Amino acid sequence: MSHADPFITKLERARRAAKSLATVTTMQKNAALEAIAQGLEEAIPEIVAANAEDLARGEANQIGDGLLDRLRLDEARVRSLAAAVRELIALPDPIGQIVRGSTLANGIKISQVRVPFGVVGAIYEARPNVTVDIAALALKSGNGAVLRGGTAAEHSNRVLVAVIQRAISASGLDGDAVQTIDEFGREGAGRLMRARGYVDVLIPRGSAGLIATVVSESTVPVIETGAGIVHVYVDATADPQMAVQIVTNAKTHRPSVCNAAETLLVHRDAAPRILPLIAEQLLGAGVELAGDAAARAIAAELGEADDETWSTEHLALEMGVRIVDSLDEAIEHIDRYSTRHTESIVTEDYASAERFLADVDSAVVMVNASTRFTDGGEFGFGAEVGISTQKLHARGPMGLAELTSTKWLVRGAGQIR
Amino acid sequence: MSHADPFITKLERARRAAKSLATVTTMQKNAALEAIAQGLEEAIPEIVAANAEDLARGEANQIGDGLLDRLRLDEARVRSLAAAVRELIALPDPIGQIVRGSTLANGIKISQVRVPFGVVGAIYEARPNVTVDIAALALKSGNGAVLRGGTAAEHSNRVLVAVIQRAISASGLDGDAVQTIDEFGREGAGRLMRARGYVDVLIPRGSAGLIATVVSESTVPVIETGAGIVHVYVDATADPQMAVQIVTNAKTHRPSVCNAAETLLVHRDAAPRILPLIAEQLLGAGVELAGDAAARAIAAELGEADDETWSTEHLALEMGVRIVDSLDEAIEHIDRYSTRHTESIVTEDYASAERFLADVDSAVVMVNASTRFTDGGEFGFGAEVGISTQKLHARGPMGLAELTSTKWLVRGAGQIR
Repeated sequence: MSHADPFITKLERARRAAKSLATVTTMQKNAALEAIAQGLEEAIPEIVAANAEDLARGEANQIGDGLLDRLRLDEARVRSLAAAVRELIALPDPIGQIVRGSTLANGIKISQVRVPFGVVGAIYEARPNVTVDIAALALKSGNGAVLRGGTAAEHSNRVLVAVIQRAISASGLDGDAVQTIDEFGREGAGRLMRARGYVDVLIPRGSAGLIATVVSESTVPVIETGAGIVHVYVDATADPQMAVQIVTNAKTHRPSVCNAAETLLVHRDAAPRILPLIAEQLLGAGVELAGDAAARAIAAELGEADDETWSTEHLALEMGVRIVDSLDEAIEHIDRYSTRHTESIVTEDYASAERFLADVDSAVVMVNASTRFTDGGEFGFGAEVGISTQKLHARGPMGLAELTSTKWLVRGAGQIR
Repeated sequence: MSHADPFITKLERARRAAKSLATVTTMQKNAALEAIAQGLEEAIPEIVAANAEDLARGEANQIGDGLLDRLRLDEARVRSLAAAVRELIALPDPIGQIVRGSTLANGIKISQVRVPFGVVGAIYEARPNVTVDIAALALKSGNGAVLRGGTAAEHSNRVLVAVIQRAISASGLDGDAVQTIDEFGREGAGRLMRARGYVDVLIPRGSAGLIATVVSESTVPVIETGAGIVHVYVDATADPQMAVQIVTNAKTHRPSVCNAAETLLVHRDAAPRILPLIAEQLLGAGVELAGDAAARAIAAELGEADDETWSTEHLALEMGVRIVDSLDEAIEHIDRYSTRHTESIVTEDYASAERFLADVDSAVVMVNASTRFTDGGEFGFGAEVGISTQKLHARGPMGLAELTSTKWLVRGAGQIR
């Protein structure tokens, strides 16, 4: 079957290459990863020059300092991308791992083994680092990758994909395994979302709006990586020192990421004792606090919270503060406003800890720990594929294994039913 | 928040009830299952009477004997539904199982535990047994269930759901956990597919057309259970006796189910030796065979195959037969036409067996065994949730564990980053 359609041609190339990747050895994949790392280092001038075009356009379009910073690739950043690719080499290959198996009563042996998905699609915005990231993760897990990186990073992505394709081919594997569809614009993104049969799973990375669009328009299965309206609840029995440290770390350690805390809930009995200490620390660190009436009665420095406060992922030095009458009220608040990413309770009470763990329905539920620990690296997965906030397939930090499917191998000796 | 919308009210009830089911004990869920089994037995006259209305309408609408048979609930069938519910009692409860866990370098303990999805939606057609089946499986796995069973079985389903709700309530749990939305008709089915936030996963059961509609229109994550264009490949070195037995069993043991074989591929070198034996056995069992030219040259009794032959799930005593020149050609044929459910090779050759297992990309890949073994019961899962032909979340036979998600529990002692 030949298609004149250049979009379909790219998807078919990725699919064909992915098929060959599914059964190559770990050594071959690791050699390709090393070739990619070297290729990136050798192409630094080329990459930085292409990136300068994207930056110039971004500045002309006044896209803002935050976006410009995410878009920027200087020599140091390219070197750290190459270093991240090399880190994957050391990780165990998930493909071929036997998940479970048994011998049936009739002597048939069954085993469930990890296999690649096939082709992983990714839709993201203005983050050329994701191009390298997803391509390398897909390769290590035996998958092809079709990338839609957005117009803002178009020049950078084109050069990065070319470097990656050359490196894969030079290492003896099929360079078609990684494709960019940026040249097809918005229409290409739409087609990718409906490319069932060509793409096995789609990963959106970026703003809540982008993720919502992909989720609602895709017929390809999606892994939603997510927005985090993350809560820390300071229980009646919390240790004041621990509460201050955990809340401060959860809010200020890296406020722009999804596992940073957005809302602080404090039990009424603990508030007079602990809230002033927390407020002092956070205000000192430059955090803007917006409290409900009860919180402001205790800490007068707080601004006024409105309903938007509880449903906003600030990703900045801002935090909502609410006083609750009970653990139940804290759990109800979380149930209503959380994006089900991560929540943490600070408590000295055994029953409160266990109830919080059981009743809060989020990807990661914590006792006496900073929400910043929700992270593939911290969990020991090595690679950072993203943090899933959906319930199907993967929930919470995703490692390489979450980029795989399984199949059942059945070995018989002529058995029939 | 109160909604006047009766559809949303039902979904909210299911959601609230599901929340309470998530943390009840296995003993409580088993008591509810026993109450359902008893409730079904006590309501036999009521169920059979309601079913008679559906059957009368079906006959008036001339829906055909096959559909009428699937629709029919007599006393024996209701008793066997009750027996199937009781079988679930003996199965281990997946909820709370620890999938994996470790202690991080900083002393934080993490564990990944199985939790219910929340609310499972099901869309199916003219199969009132599925109503009991899904409700019971959902209950055992701590989930609520919202059921759309279709107009053809409307009366039966209404009575069955009422019996189930009463039984769950009588056992002390929340009977709202199981809801039917049949009264909202086609529009209700459409709304269920877009009920993100109310329904966590949607399982379509029925025709390929129904499944395709659900897959393309749902914004709720779907688990596709599936159509099976299942292949048996008789390799050059196959044992003739074993090949005859496996092909006959795979085709004729129960032709109407998804793991029945639809296409027979025979290696050119084995065909003169083995195909006549297989053809004799199958034709004797009443199977209509449609072969390509090479197959008809060897077995003159075969009808003529066309391209439709290879892409049709007959679900009847019909089978396509094709001669291939090599294992590669067999794998290529499978790659092109298979629905990626189950394929089996019959061979005495070690390398052929291993290549088939590695290169065929289907949920279950077999050597020297009947494809009829792709089944939750045969695999030892106890319950039959369905057979997933998708790659996300679950692939192949699904047990109760496939109706669950996980969450990470993190126990710290004040750790921060």
